[in-house]
Amino acid sequence: MIIDCHGHFTNSPSALHAHRDMRRSGAPAGWLLEAFSSVVGDDDLRELIETSHLAGLRERGTDLVIFSPQASAMDHHLADADGAVAWARENNDLIHQVTQLFPDHFAGACQLPQTPDGNLRACVAELRRCADEYGFVGVNLNPDPSGGRWTAPPITDHYWYPLYEAMVELQIPAMIHASGSCTESVHSLGAHYLNADTTAFMQLLQGDLFADFPTLSFIIPHGGGAVPYHWGRFRGLAERLRRPALEEHLMRNIYFDTSIYHAPGIQLLLDTVGVRNTLFASEMLGAVRTVDPLTGTYFDDTKRHIDAMGLNDNDRRRIFCENALQIYPRLSLGARRHAAWSDH
Amino acid sequence: MIIDCHGHFTNSPSALHAHRDMRRSGAPAGWLLEAFSSVVGDDDLRELIETSHLAGLRERGTDLVIFSPQASAMDHHLADADGAVAWARENNDLIHQVTQLFPDHFAGACQLPQTPDGNLRACVAELRRCADEYGFVGVNLNPDPSGGRWTAPPITDHYWYPLYEAMVELQIPAMIHASGSCTESVHSLGAHYLNADTTAFMQLLQGDLFADFPTLSFIIPHGGGAVPYHWGRFRGLAERLRRPALEEHLMRNIYFDTSIYHAPGIQLLLDTVGVRNTLFASEMLGAVRTVDPLTGTYFDDTKRHIDAMGLNDNDRRRIFCENALQIYPRLSLGARRHAAWSDH
Repeated sequence: MIIDCHGHFTNSPSALHAHRDMRRSGAPAGWLLEAFSSVVGDDDLRELIETSHLAGLRERGTDLVIFSPQASAMDHHLADADGAVAWARENNDLIHQVTQLFPDHFAGACQLPQTPDGNLRACVAELRRCADEYGFVGVNLNPDPSGGRWTAPPITDHYWYPLYEAMVELQIPAMIHASGSCTESVHSLGAHYLNADTTAFMQLLQGDLFADFPTLSFIIPHGGGAVPYHWGRFRGLAERLRRPALEEHLMRNIYFDTSIYHAPGIQLLLDTVGVRNTLFASEMLGAVRTVDPLTGTYFDDTKRHIDAMGLNDNDRRRIFCENALQIYPRLSLGARRHAAWSDH
Repeated sequence: MIIDCHGHFTNSPSALHAHRDMRRSGAPAGWLLEAFSSVVGDDDLRELIETSHLAGLRERGTDLVIFSPQASAMDHHLADADGAVAWARENNDLIHQVTQLFPDHFAGACQLPQTPDGNLRACVAELRRCADEYGFVGVNLNPDPSGGRWTAPPITDHYWYPLYEAMVELQIPAMIHASGSCTESVHSLGAHYLNADTTAFMQLLQGDLFADFPTLSFIIPHGGGAVPYHWGRFRGLAERLRRPALEEHLMRNIYFDTSIYHAPGIQLLLDTVGVRNTLFASEMLGAVRTVDPLTGTYFDDTKRHIDAMGLNDNDRRRIFCENALQIYPRLSLGARRHAAWSDH
């Protein structure tokens, strides 16, 4: 079985976009809360998914995607706490609807109603709702709800602990994923996302979070931002800051995904971070959706690059499936329905 | 000849640090302007450099460093424009003093008196002073004088054009280099620098700066931040944003340095960006100054990694010397004094 740990509903129905526009223009949260349950009918949603995400999965031989709302549209920078709850619920409900329509192919990861430096109580409540009522397996955690100003405390700060306590209890790992950039100078897809990945890793290096939460797991997407490319720098910084070696300090709890759109990058990830800490992902439909003129295949068809690397069966199984089943324990119940590993 | 394009005076004399502290605590610019010329005597400076930077150069077989003030201490986030001028002059004067003491081994690159969204007139004046009076060959340009809030316009904006006009006229390339981070959540060495590299590249990708300045050159340090690791992503984003292919759009004017502290990273840089756009650098004395326990050699001894790559003589010459002589035209006058290429 092939599990892609990183997919967003980036082509969500237009009704959702209309709601987003209303929220961003100041519509009251009450209106959004009323509206959120009626975005799109099952038939329309089925057709939308079948002709986009599911078609892509089938074409590439991927079985299951951990599916979450569009990251750039999380809009955590808006300070309106009630609106954030309504907007997260609306998005998560839609993800749930997809997972219900295609339970063999989509598992849910939720958006949190974060706000800049906001109280995390609503986030914990939404995480519990998505886990308990919807069977979601993951959550996206934005380390910078300000959208580029980095006003929130580091993710190692006690501020975040109520969320981590719930995650540990529910056996839910977090993908560290920023939302859209609010600053003209920092492009969301080409800078802010990658910067957030790098920054979050460095926060974890500086802190000692996993001493307090030894069973907490984080996935850093987009191949870990700049981190594996600068693995020597981070190993050296750990020494300079008198932290333990990265393997012991962080790498029992942190995983990088393979959303890197060329083979040399994925190869470097495996050469430095290693198979144990790597999860297959394509981010489909993500930042780049076209065919690479150099290879004749889609930029985000990362599976093809991994397939071409001549990995042994054991390593392939770990990257494509077993690591995900281990890090997302709630996936196993659903995953057991699937056929056993087969070499695509 | 081996040219390292990226060295900072990170171990500058304590008198300089004392001045910095005074500025940060609000000392009047007039005082700093008076003080700047008497930081440290030639004998003391000679000894300091001989026992640190120069000892390192000799040990590693590097001939010449393009040497600039400590990047994290540029303090561009302080809005005090007169203080910024005094502080830049003081730092640049000290660099000049080093280049005078060791003209065969150090060429100067200046710090600019940038302030957040400040007028660039003082920056242009300081650039001219350092070029005309001191024979400096490069300049460090901070794309985010706010120190992490990214309030400045993108480096493709017309705001920056007066500086670029002077750079072109003086034949001086800029290293795009952030200063220290002012936000607790973003570590200077482990996040902000790399993020600034990535962000600046993406700004250049979005814009069309080199159509207006076809002879302008930028060096993006630290191996280009996250860019080469995500080269496919950036090639794909160029397509998505309907920009020309990167080779044509950017790579006639942008160069990445080899300040990447492990061999796989440098190898990836060469595999993606290529020899033509790579400049040797170690950032010594930089972010990481200890011995890598995995290799038994210094993390920042990047020359050793390049030496071990089995490059042909032509490629080695370009990375270690010829590319730098081409991008820093003002270097040639001084460089001509040196012995011809010899294989260290």
